Amino acid sequence: MDKKIRSNCPVSYALELIGDKWTLLVLRDIILRDKYFYKDFLNSEEGIATNILSNRLKALESHGFILKNRDTKDRKRFIYSPTEKALDLLPVLIATMQWSDKYNTENKQRPVFMEMVRNDPTEFESMIRARFSDNTPCD
Amino acid sequence: MDKKIRSNCPVSYALELIGDKWTLLVLRDIILRDKYFYKDFLNSEEGIATNILSNRLKALESHGFILKNRDTKDRKRFIYSPTEKALDLLPVLIATMQWSDKYNTENKQRPVFMEMVRNDPTEFESMIRARFSDNTPCD
Repeated sequence: MDKKIRSNCPVSYALELIGDKWTLLVLRDIILRDKYFYKDFLNSEEGIATNILSNRLKALESHGFILKNRDTKDRKRFIYSPTEKALDLLPVLIATMQWSDKYNTENKQRPVFMEMVRNDPTEFESMIRARFSDNTPCD
Repeated sequence: MDKKIRSNCPVSYALELIGDKWTLLVLRDIILRDKYFYKDFLNSEEGIATNILSNRLKALESHGFILKNRDTKDRKRFIYSPTEKALDLLPVLIATMQWSDKYNTENKQRPVFMEMVRNDPTEFESMIRARFSDNTPCD
């Protein structure tokens, strides 16, 4: 799962790890959408294929972005949660949302959290971080 | 060159357009590195393949991120420059650089502009925008 680091550029470094649309959509689900389970990610509206999802989850775990723990309420399934390394991508996600908010002019149905980002992006980031501060999102 | 927009999510919207490593590296070259010519992008240290570069430049032009104009000093070649839509991605690029600055701990050779981002990211963004404010980066 090791990545070849192609350059010392800080843009390139991050892109070697997360510069893939599906990787960032899975991180979005885990960080912003209260999704914890494989099935939840699979059901997101973008329609990720199961082999791509499985591959991206393994890579994210291997690179320290997510934790995979057995669900204490249902031992057959796993709960995925973001690490600090993943939560530190919140400014990237927020900046991306702000850009889309300006340029996706045809979109009438904006998610509720877009209003929060518009009103106070710093407060939005703090709120998301607080959700994961006890590391037990599902209990 | 039209993209299928898979969801109303503002993260997904941007990723449909720029959620590809090579696309963002070309934008980095154009926005942050004073690169204007096809050959310059091709020579970046990440080693983009010529067919990928050609494809990404066409997509970026088609989606309104870059302008392609004939070089007045050498009519055989083209100058590429970023639009406002591309420059509005600066907060995404800067947030990405800040994340890498924290997590790429093995990198001893950081680019000069990383120091500027560390000291004052807002000023860094203004400086980059000012470079393109007269729309004649090569004259």
